[in-house]
Amino acid sequence: MDAPLHRHACEVAFGDTDASGWMHFPNIFRYFEEAEHAFLKSRGILVFGREQGGWPRVKVSCDYKRPLLTGERIEVLLEISRIGASSLTWNFEVLTAAGELAAFGSVTTVRVNHEGKPQLITDAERAALAGRTA
Amino acid sequence: MDAPLHRHACEVAFGDTDASGWMHFPNIFRYFEEAEHAFLKSRGILVFGREQGGWPRVKVSCDYKRPLLTGERIEVLLEISRIGASSLTWNFEVLTAAGELAAFGSVTTVRVNHEGKPQLITDAERAALAGRTA
Amino acid sequence: MDAPLHRHACEVAFGDTDASGWMHFPNIFRYFEEAEHAFLKSRGILVFGREQGGWPRVKVSCDYKRPLLTGERIEVLLEISRIGASSLTWNFEVLTAAGELAAFGSVTTVRVNHEGKPQLITDAERAALAGRTA
Amino acid sequence: MDAPLHRHACEVAFGDTDASGWMHFPNIFRYFEEAEHAFLKSRGILVFGREQGGWPRVKVSCDYKRPLLTGERIEVLLEISRIGASSLTWNFEVLTAAGELAAFGSVTTVRVNHEGKPQLITDAERAALAGRTA
Repeated sequence: MDAPLHRHACEVAFGDTDASGWMHFPNIFRYFEEAEHAFLKSRGILVFGREQGGWPRVKVSCDYKRPLLTGERIEVLLEISRIGASSLTWNFEVLTAAGELAAFGSVTTVRVNHEGKPQLITDAERAALAGRTA
Repeated sequence: MDAPLHRHACEVAFGDTDASGWMHFPNIFRYFEEAEHAFLKSRGILVFGREQGGWPRVKVSCDYKRPLLTGERIEVLLEISRIGASSLTWNFEVLTAAGELAAFGSVTTVRVNHEGKPQLITDAERAALAGRTA
Repeated sequence: MDAPLHRHACEVAFGDTDASGWMHFPNIFRYFEEAEHAFLKSRGILVFGREQGGWPRVKVSCDYKRPLLTGERIEVLLEISRIGASSLTWNFEVLTAAGELAAFGSVTTVRVNHEGKPQLITDAERAALAGRTA
Repeated sequence: MDAPLHRHACEVAFGDTDASGWMHFPNIFRYFEEAEHAFLKSRGILVFGREQGGWPRVKVSCDYKRPLLTGERIEVLLEISRIGASSLTWNFEVLTAAGELAAFGSVTTVRVNHEGKPQLITDAERAALAGRTA
């Protein structure tokens, strides 16, 4: 990822591993989500609110390149590959402390209101996502 | 537990283990919760509803006697040790397939409404918990 | 899925949901994994062993079509779309109790030994996966 | 807790909540564990190793005083209440960003070797736990 929109440092918790000794694979999406939420918060964009809605996921994928171990420091890189009328597609990469690619994938989310109905991403949200003032 | 109110069979999922090869310890409360919810449902008592409320936990404890491994069949036994005005205290035991005690503990929950405010356990709920008609 | 290899019934636990009220999306892969492990076990194929190895995941994807709620009964359907030299690709569908498609996806796994090194899927494993005697 | 041995800052992840909108209660022990591991690491004490062993839990308890919400910044405070021959008892408190007590509890762990057999806590480990040189 040449110019990530956001970089988020985190750690593989012992509770994120399984009996193989490696990170239990679905947790890669928890790391993505932590990074995504940190980014949205940093831009003043809604993360989730019972009255305001949020960004449920409609499509996810991940390729795993290296196993992650307990206590390992990792970094999640994010970029946005597409902003649709109501949907947003993120690409993510997870790097080890040595900078090696451990996993990469994408997650498509949809902006919904408090009833879970899709709604248009506003101009203010588009501007904030792009790092511009609306 | 001499006369459990409920017995719930479940299995230690691979995703419930950690790198030690054993069940990650907080998951014992997930097994308790599965058993509790199955019991409440079987008695027609509210489990959780955004409009009706639920049973948040105020105090939990567990003693671990044997490690649990992935794929292990277990059984959760429940009894109620105390019903207060708004609170309910469960005792639980987790047994291995061979009937050995793997863990035991207790969980105190409080009946709350949709705003999270404690409310009285109704006579109908008391009767249903005790297996009697109100 | 016309002729699934395996059907696995399970339930959305309260602990699988998040504050949106819906299942937290990475848990869909836990349901897949439960189904996969139940199938492998039923065919006498290794699930995981510290001395024997297992099936780490190298690629996963999922499309979400309907939100799942706490306590919902679901069914996971499995088929194998490809058996390579060392890898196995599963397709899965998650259906609601009413038979509606809630999610579908695929998971590619690799047969590894106790050191995590890929090894050939044996003829016996191929036969067992296909439901034939080697 | 007057003079905590360690303070660990973390955040309630969206994936740590449940449909009630609050943190799913067993996760309090994940926050404890993160704090404990960060502390052990900072003192150069073994956290976990497949060849060296670790610290499985034999007894845990927690009182919950306030619900925790997604995205909430929290702090975990640790102290050691007892060091036995092989066992260690931690007390923990979880504070909100406003410094209010959200939960408190204790966790008793046992030093085990790679086979899961209890072994004596060494003088070096005792000294490191106490912040002294052996």
